[in-house]
Amino acid sequence: MKISARNVLKGKVVSVEKGATTAHVKIEIAPGQVVTAAITNESVDALKLTPGSEAYAVVKASDVMVAVD
Amino acid sequence: MKISARNVLKGKVVSVEKGATTAHVKIEIAPGQVVTAAITNESVDALKLTPGSEAYAVVKASDVMVAVD
Amino acid sequence: MKISARNVLKGKVVSVEKGATTAHVKIEIAPGQVVTAAITNESVDALKLTPGSEAYAVVKASDVMVAVD
Amino acid sequence: MKISARNVLKGKVVSVEKGATTAHVKIEIAPGQVVTAAITNESVDALKLTPGSEAYAVVKASDVMVAVD
Amino acid sequence: MKISARNVLKGKVVSVEKGATTAHVKIEIAPGQVVTAAITNESVDALKLTPGSEAYAVVKASDVMVAVD
Amino acid sequence: MKISARNVLKGKVVSVEKGATTAHVKIEIAPGQVVTAAITNESVDALKLTPGSEAYAVVKASDVMVAVD
Repeated sequence: MKISARNVLKGKVVSVEKGATTAHVKIEIAPGQVVTAAITNESVDALKLTPGSEAYAVVKASDVMVAVD
Repeated sequence: MKISARNVLKGKVVSVEKGATTAHVKIEIAPGQVVTAAITNESVDALKLTPGSEAYAVVKASDVMVAVD
Repeated sequence: MKISARNVLKGKVVSVEKGATTAHVKIEIAPGQVVTAAITNESVDALKLTPGSEAYAVVKASDVMVAVD
Repeated sequence: MKISARNVLKGKVVSVEKGATTAHVKIEIAPGQVVTAAITNESVDALKLTPGSEAYAVVKASDVMVAVD
Repeated sequence: MKISARNVLKGKVVSVEKGATTAHVKIEIAPGQVVTAAITNESVDALKLTPGSEAYAVVKASDVMVAVD
Repeated sequence: MKISARNVLKGKVVSVEKGATTAHVKIEIAPGQVVTAAITNESVDALKLTPGSEAYAVVKASDVMVAVD
């Protein structure tokens, strides 16, 4: 499957924390740069996400903001 | 200002393309890893974004999806 | 690629309207039920979207609201 | 109330799963096509959502992505 | 129609700027507090939005971030 | 830090409710106008949010919808 989302960042899962319905998955996409995703527990199971597994952080361009110092 | 968004990725603006109301800003956050942001033209002006300037790509955790091969 | 987004609705592209930077793509996911996606022109090109092509409308669960009459 | 969101898909609630703060509501919008919404528990109560009730899945066009095989 | 979005802020439209596909609508929700919405041109027409008309700014709770100084 | 998000509404935290992973924070941005944010528990801790503290509700323009009666 090829998706329209402009941002598909390859990395490695560093942690998976399931909540009651929402899980937080952390993916290291570059040395020292970790992205946090809040997804459903259901998705964690469907994608079999565990620490160490390869994964992509995917973000739609309209969900990216820009900041400056 | 400190923001709740879990993902604040430092980088350098590589391109700014203004449309009629929406602009696309590309930020290189790691060698070869470019993030695209769709923001308002108004914000591009307010933040004085130009190629070469330092900037952060900011994404709320609930806007990050995960994918696997 | 398998994605965490819980909503992947199969359909057929019925129209593609490019703007200056943002395009509107309409996908019929069931007889008479058309979904509108606002994506980058860049993605329209990358995915070669044209009326008649098969495509999926993909939505993260946290972006779905519920309404009642 | 009439809303700007381009996608208002009529259906029937098939399940409601409350978490600690976030609930998952599944709505069947066409035979076999189920949409999952992650909303607040508070909204589930305010809208009195229960399996079997009629409801709409509402999605802003800028939150819809497109994918192809 | 009653919607799950937790934030429905009543106000008055102060400006409508149509782009090629995306419009920016500004709504004053309290004296001096103006909210900007980026919606489709199509929605501007469907809702007949013009400066001076009463309108609500609607935001899903999961799309609200928090910041502190 | 200056952010591209067009909506930065100053107010006071009126409540903080932590869930298993997701917290709901309510901010009064004008007399009687309360905004609800769903953010990570992690952010609540990082920003030391407690009832009474000053805070901003921040929303990207593309996440704001418009509704009319």
